[in-house]
Amino acid sequence: MRFSPLLDELIKSLQVLPGVGPKSAQRMAFALLERQRAGGRKLAHVLEQSLDRIGHCRQCRTFTEEEICPICANPKRALGGQLCIVESPADVVAIEQTGQFQGRYFVLMGHLSPLDGVGPEELGLDRLADWLAAEQFEELILATNPTVEGEATAYFIADIARSHGVRVSRIAHGVPIGGELELVDGNTLSHSLMGRKAFAD
Amino acid sequence: MRFSPLLDELIKSLQVLPGVGPKSAQRMAFALLERQRAGGRKLAHVLEQSLDRIGHCRQCRTFTEEEICPICANPKRALGGQLCIVESPADVVAIEQTGQFQGRYFVLMGHLSPLDGVGPEELGLDRLADWLAAEQFEELILATNPTVEGEATAYFIADIARSHGVRVSRIAHGVPIGGELELVDGNTLSHSLMGRKAFAD
Repeated sequence: MRFSPLLDELIKSLQVLPGVGPKSAQRMAFALLERQRAGGRKLAHVLEQSLDRIGHCRQCRTFTEEEICPICANPKRALGGQLCIVESPADVVAIEQTGQFQGRYFVLMGHLSPLDGVGPEELGLDRLADWLAAEQFEELILATNPTVEGEATAYFIADIARSHGVRVSRIAHGVPIGGELELVDGNTLSHSLMGRKAFAD
Repeated sequence: MRFSPLLDELIKSLQVLPGVGPKSAQRMAFALLERQRAGGRKLAHVLEQSLDRIGHCRQCRTFTEEEICPICANPKRALGGQLCIVESPADVVAIEQTGQFQGRYFVLMGHLSPLDGVGPEELGLDRLADWLAAEQFEELILATNPTVEGEATAYFIADIARSHGVRVSRIAHGVPIGGELELVDGNTLSHSLMGRKAFAD
């Protein structure tokens, strides 16, 4: 025998969460039933609400429960004519926390990965092309991850942007601030040398 | 800014799960919204159902959605007059899988831990005493964990059982089957020596 049918089903359902196998699911189920009944009820309610109401922003594709996300809806964000391309909503939050960027975003929700069936359409690049055609942007900033797939995606999008006459830039890659040169990997160090800039007087 | 209010709430609610911090909660929320909407809905439903319906068996305290769990409800399990004391419902499953035990269980749902406010009452030991008084058991098998707390709990329960005239045994501790002597810790090896038995001819 295993646990009671309902408890077995709970343990199985929890394994839909990424990184959760049978043992952690069992630990989670026990913790919820023993000590976290109120928190568990809240989770069930919020999860159902979220799945019902959270969709993608019609303009930038980030997660939002509105038709248009707060950033896209803010007319001030359109002033500079800058559009930043990122892979995930978490990247939007990370860039927003720097306070350095006042433009708008386009969230790919992934990167090009033909083997996994993720092509331009899955990343909404047709919608991006429509947007670039409809509105005159000053600059498109590529902030995809510095991985092989992220770089390939950046090259692909740069071509689209140039065909619409938009200036394209890529965020700088190099030695992290506060890092020590001898601890940085060779690839990052080469990028850092190739990307060197004139030293300010 | 953070994510949209509802997404923020989902990420916060997921952190009620043990071992889930802000980063994993974010990864879980994204995975559910992007790829696992059906699985997420199922989880929300089963979680709510479980919290509503799963309680403790009135007799042995294990998790069950019935009044009395299937093991306690099975009259065959009462025949040998054996009662096995374990700390958690997971231990019941582990022992059931051996197929070696045909008696009934009493699940403490923890171990004595005065610093955490877990005393005899929290472990249902008054109910255990009532049960031992109401029914004549042949043997009470202590299968609490071989930790300091588990041992203390075992000693405490042994006293209760003896005062009801029930024979008390403790599961054997020693070198695990398939293990190598040189890799076993000293404490286990001492137990294994102290618990030696006459060699069968």
